[in-house]
Amino acid sequence: MKNREIEISVKERRKEVLRNLRRFGGRLYNQMEKGIFPRIRMPSRSTENIFYSPELRQYILGDKTVRRSARNIRHIRPFTQLVWAGYFASELTKNRKTSTLRDVYYSAQAYDMSFKDQAESNSIVTDLETVMGFSREDFKVFPEERSAIFGDLTIEYTVPGYEGKQLNLMSHPDGVMIGPALTSSEFAQTRADKVIAIEKGGLFTRFIEERVHKKFNALLVLTAGQAPRATRHFIHRLNKELDLPVFIFTDGDPWGMHIAMVIISGSANAAHLRELTTPDAKWSGVWATDIVDYKLPSDPLTEVDIKRLHELEKDPRYEGELWRRETQKFLSIKKKAEQEAFSRYGLTYIVDEYLPAKLEETD
Amino acid sequence: MKNREIEISVKERRKEVLRNLRRFGGRLYNQMEKGIFPRIRMPSRSTENIFYSPELRQYILGDKTVRRSARNIRHIRPFTQLVWAGYFASELTKNRKTSTLRDVYYSAQAYDMSFKDQAESNSIVTDLETVMGFSREDFKVFPEERSAIFGDLTIEYTVPGYEGKQLNLMSHPDGVMIGPALTSSEFAQTRADKVIAIEKGGLFTRFIEERVHKKFNALLVLTAGQAPRATRHFIHRLNKELDLPVFIFTDGDPWGMHIAMVIISGSANAAHLRELTTPDAKWSGVWATDIVDYKLPSDPLTEVDIKRLHELEKDPRYEGELWRRETQKFLSIKKKAEQEAFSRYGLTYIVDEYLPAKLEETD
Repeated sequence: MKNREIEISVKERRKEVLRNLRRFGGRLYNQMEKGIFPRIRMPSRSTENIFYSPELRQYILGDKTVRRSARNIRHIRPFTQLVWAGYFASELTKNRKTSTLRDVYYSAQAYDMSFKDQAESNSIVTDLETVMGFSREDFKVFPEERSAIFGDLTIEYTVPGYEGKQLNLMSHPDGVMIGPALTSSEFAQTRADKVIAIEKGGLFTRFIEERVHKKFNALLVLTAGQAPRATRHFIHRLNKELDLPVFIFTDGDPWGMHIAMVIISGSANAAHLRELTTPDAKWSGVWATDIVDYKLPSDPLTEVDIKRLHELEKDPRYEGELWRRETQKFLSIKKKAEQEAFSRYGLTYIVDEYLPAKLEETD
Repeated sequence: MKNREIEISVKERRKEVLRNLRRFGGRLYNQMEKGIFPRIRMPSRSTENIFYSPELRQYILGDKTVRRSARNIRHIRPFTQLVWAGYFASELTKNRKTSTLRDVYYSAQAYDMSFKDQAESNSIVTDLETVMGFSREDFKVFPEERSAIFGDLTIEYTVPGYEGKQLNLMSHPDGVMIGPALTSSEFAQTRADKVIAIEKGGLFTRFIEERVHKKFNALLVLTAGQAPRATRHFIHRLNKELDLPVFIFTDGDPWGMHIAMVIISGSANAAHLRELTTPDAKWSGVWATDIVDYKLPSDPLTEVDIKRLHELEKDPRYEGELWRRETQKFLSIKKKAEQEAFSRYGLTYIVDEYLPAKLEETD
């Protein structure tokens, strides 16, 4: 299939993850064989080392690094935890077993490894991402949440029991789940020329029923609220590997706006990763200006909504013209509207009128 | 396929829904032709008319009825809203368009029908269920939430564009969504002999990876927290139409326990319906006694958890021996545990040891 950027294949990626993990362990062994205390240096993830990059249009880490050394008594605990996390990640990846952050926390006890709490264990998994340069989904630590996809894309599985099997993602008209099997599949064929991501399940079903996938030649992704990381990575792949533009439709409020933003520019928590963002994706609506232009039924903004908008105004990801304009518009009209508000003009208005107008406007 | 009880087929059901709606409208026309003010009598859904039936093992409505008459000025508003809801439901069902409660609320505006707020519109939809004796999913008003299923069941679609097409639900190893197309499908073939419902996405994936569907001949249903109504109806169908016993696995806390209970005995809000419960389904774990017996890593119960347990103690659905014992046990050990806590004994312990033991214990 056509590639805008050279991306390594899923199989190559899995090998590369295992190579990286072996390299990580190998370095520690070498240090010990030379008679020196094993140590690791990695980019610092402290707040003062996180910067927004206007070029990459996402948060990145600066030049500061931190060192963990087995020599330092205060480092021994996180150092040992990190080494165990590397071992556990390698077991998961080799055996092709998926897990969750919660599983990692509890699994540690099977190895007499102790984490104070879930937060400590999560932080060590993020350290491992930083050391490895791979996201935790690559070493089989998956989000608990699930989202879905529907459309004319044929995938080829790489998971055990399904290797080489293909599935067209129109096979089930309610959509299929975006889980470990889907995200680790190769793309075999598609006739779609765009991706439309949708916040809500009801509208996702409406789009399928109204044949948006055919009429607009689109793959439909249900984010089910904030898109899980695995889904953000999958959208990134659809954009990079298949060169498909991405349009995001959310509720018209600061929370919907931020669902779009996190798909586009990611979060500060993932400043050490590059594959969870899709900077060229577009937030196509529902905008504050749409609430006015389409005379949508609306609700007043709450105190919490307004507070959130003021936070977004200071967020470097929101510096683009569209984002400034819409944030200000929300604050001036003091209203919000859900995607379903278009049903005010009949159930299919959103597909017949709004969708084509917005796809053109944000193309 | 074998039928424990005679259930009408999906196609018959759709026809019956349309017949009921026509009958509803027809009665009103007849009354008007006779020169009398149209009126409707239906079972009262007020709290004092909701009873728990130990025979049916669910809430039911008592003998009290309410009358709405176009003659009564105070009735005119809800009466008109109900008639409109019947018209809208008939449009949805005839045109095979699905919607959500939110859509119904906004759609009313397209007909110059006004609802004060979402609560008023929801209540009218429930009135329509009560009048019709069918659940709102039958007239195409679906939940926003989505859950998933995986296993060796072949379904045959009845939705437009897919009529007569079959899909085996093992086609996609992340699971397929339980949406309007799945719930309106007919069951063509299965080799499964039980249903296992699971609260969480991570464990659902674990069960698929560890081939629980093969080893235990099971259909796996992800409830994704509290099971959406459409999923509860689907589980009911699997139980009634295919005669499959249902086992439910949740977190070991009052919230997990109640997820199981709502699948089994439903809620007071749906006392007017019979198809959203599966009274013979079993809550197989995680029990409070499992926390002790399996020495699971646990967290202390919070104030809110304890308050909830005291509420459940007074709930008539919780009068069975298992429920009383486990509620008391939670309160005495003052601990709760998640399903993932079994990872303490290795990732596959839950499938290798716990699952078979509990399936046997609750069979």
